[in-house]
Amino acid sequence: MASTVSPLAPKSYPDMPDLDGVRFATAEAGIKYKGRTDVLLASLDEGTAVAGVFTRSKCSSAPVDWCKSILSNGRARALLVNSGNANAFTGKKGKSAVELSAKIAARALACDPADVFLASTGVIGEPLDAEKFEDVIDELAAAEKPASWLDAAKAIMTTDTFPKVATASVDIDGETITINGMAKGAGMIAPDMATMLSFIFTDAAISPPVLQSLLSGETDDSFNSVTVDSDTSTSDTVLLFATGAAEKRGISKLDALDDPRLATVRAALGDLMQNLAQQIARDGEGARKFVEVQVEGAETDTSARTIALSIANSPLVKTAVAGEDANWGRVVMAVGKAGEPADRDKLAIWFGDVRVAVDGERDADYSEEAASAVMKEEDIVIRVDLGLGEGQARVWTCDLTKEYVAINGDYRS
Amino acid sequence: MASTVSPLAPKSYPDMPDLDGVRFATAEAGIKYKGRTDVLLASLDEGTAVAGVFTRSKCSSAPVDWCKSILSNGRARALLVNSGNANAFTGKKGKSAVELSAKIAARALACDPADVFLASTGVIGEPLDAEKFEDVIDELAAAEKPASWLDAAKAIMTTDTFPKVATASVDIDGETITINGMAKGAGMIAPDMATMLSFIFTDAAISPPVLQSLLSGETDDSFNSVTVDSDTSTSDTVLLFATGAAEKRGISKLDALDDPRLATVRAALGDLMQNLAQQIARDGEGARKFVEVQVEGAETDTSARTIALSIANSPLVKTAVAGEDANWGRVVMAVGKAGEPADRDKLAIWFGDVRVAVDGERDADYSEEAASAVMKEEDIVIRVDLGLGEGQARVWTCDLTKEYVAINGDYRS
Repeated sequence: MASTVSPLAPKSYPDMPDLDGVRFATAEAGIKYKGRTDVLLASLDEGTAVAGVFTRSKCSSAPVDWCKSILSNGRARALLVNSGNANAFTGKKGKSAVELSAKIAARALACDPADVFLASTGVIGEPLDAEKFEDVIDELAAAEKPASWLDAAKAIMTTDTFPKVATASVDIDGETITINGMAKGAGMIAPDMATMLSFIFTDAAISPPVLQSLLSGETDDSFNSVTVDSDTSTSDTVLLFATGAAEKRGISKLDALDDPRLATVRAALGDLMQNLAQQIARDGEGARKFVEVQVEGAETDTSARTIALSIANSPLVKTAVAGEDANWGRVVMAVGKAGEPADRDKLAIWFGDVRVAVDGERDADYSEEAASAVMKEEDIVIRVDLGLGEGQARVWTCDLTKEYVAINGDYRS
Repeated sequence: MASTVSPLAPKSYPDMPDLDGVRFATAEAGIKYKGRTDVLLASLDEGTAVAGVFTRSKCSSAPVDWCKSILSNGRARALLVNSGNANAFTGKKGKSAVELSAKIAARALACDPADVFLASTGVIGEPLDAEKFEDVIDELAAAEKPASWLDAAKAIMTTDTFPKVATASVDIDGETITINGMAKGAGMIAPDMATMLSFIFTDAAISPPVLQSLLSGETDDSFNSVTVDSDTSTSDTVLLFATGAAEKRGISKLDALDDPRLATVRAALGDLMQNLAQQIARDGEGARKFVEVQVEGAETDTSARTIALSIANSPLVKTAVAGEDANWGRVVMAVGKAGEPADRDKLAIWFGDVRVAVDGERDADYSEEAASAVMKEEDIVIRVDLGLGEGQARVWTCDLTKEYVAINGDYRS
């Protein structure tokens, strides 16, 4: 946990409404950090449905493997998360540790270990001592006052400089359902420490297949659209829980993909996930600028996305942003290296509202002064029109600063 | 041109023997830099054959397009190179500029413009004023004393901190032929300025198809195996010229791919190209450590190469090296994100000779002290065995330091 908060942090946190069917507790288990919470236990009402998306890393962590193995049951009663140790690349010990962790939580909450979801974030390659959960589990399960959403979001932080929460309300059948989410991550974006985790909860009753479809459908335009350093974590995990408590208020279960009420839920969930994803970029390690890359006019959306990520991941583009330099030549370079269809002589590039290049060369009307003014802003939009088709994409990132190098040059030691 | 020389620069330069059939001159044309040479003219004997490989960028520079358009002739009489301006993304003006440049050089050397090869390196998007060549071309063509190889290599530098040259000799039919090469680049590696260029010359007589086969065959294991920041230049150009002057000494032309004499030439050329490629990594922007990544046991060589590049390009691996931190968890991460076949539980990782991980977890015998000692060295080998097959690869890179961010945060302004 860094000592100074990112200058891009939100100026205030939203009021997070209570959400029926989920209850948090946090504790200090001393897994790595001292003097701060590092364990989060969420207990979930019986009947809670769950959906998940996970890292595509071929070296996924033991908790990721565990969650994948139980996800098809579609039900959850608990979520146990620790920061400070990723339990990744820990071989048989890692597998034993997740089994023991699930057993410890299941005993305390009187549920089946196969209903306990797990996530760990922190250093890779150190065995995780699951016995440490044993020391705090009764305290967690018996906590008299439930922890707040902010407390919960704080317990899962590593190199994050601020907790990330978001909330949304949706009217269904004249009643309101709530969606609350939290995330951590300061790099994917920057694994090994700043692994991306997000946990989202709703009190709506939603069947597992519908829940999974909602989550998977919104992931590409949110968490898969944020990058800090192009590095993919071994532990990335997004879980969406639906406690179903809203059924008691007369909102019947959403269990069909063609349920017309799903549209508003999907839209609200998508916005909330984008909000959390942007907060991750705003807390990118060493970040001083937030960057939205917009690509349009590509042959396809997929092609636009590849090009947008090529720009967002380019160290040269990111250092230019850090230096407040409207160096559009580096954007050209990043388009060119993406390997996607592009016609140099149809390319146009904007920083904010200032068009700097058009028809394959510098815009004759381009004012260096105006472009420089854009680069001095905290939030910067880089827009590229390829002039080829209708494909478009939008991704978020941050600048690459000396602080990124400092943070990552001595993280482990 | 940076003011301090990379600590990884060679302690001395090789004696570069004369090479019959090529003659250099350099000049100060004031294209961008003041008080240093920024133009190189190489005049080549009639009968010189040429081969080339170029950037795969979809936004290639005007000189790259020009070279590609004349390469099939297979013959060259001149090479004109400037630093300070890449003549990339300059639209129709860029095309006019290369045509004019070739015409200016052709008139001075009394040859065909289609026999003049061009390369430009520097800022992207600024029109190149080819008239500036006119001002110096007579001085260049009439230079009484040919410029040395080191002088030539200096004239093509941008953010490079030292000139890069290499030489090799090969005995053929009892006579010696010479191969001399130069390169520039401090990033591909870091385009837009540190564009990679290399020009290699031999006095052997080699037919264009054989020459192209030699060059293309050796590129993957040399220049395509070096990365500084994963960014691909718009201008990357490697040209190999064979003046044929050695024919007069009785070494008959190498004009068949099955000529048995080619084996030694190929080996010497490959070594020389690897030497130049490594010098580029050693002059990587802000570099303080040289890193060789070795991957073995992959399913195929191609797969090994993708994984090796994923490690070499990972900002987290590179910052760990900068911090002298034996953070092998980040190597695991980089293997995992490469998307290639990998089995976590068969993976082994070494820093230098110290095995830090084996069978998917930390090596029980691993000494943090020994690993840390390796990381303090200037040259570091990171070795990964995937345990799956026979595929292997080797790539070179450097660490990612605060100086990289500083150099690239204010290059253009």
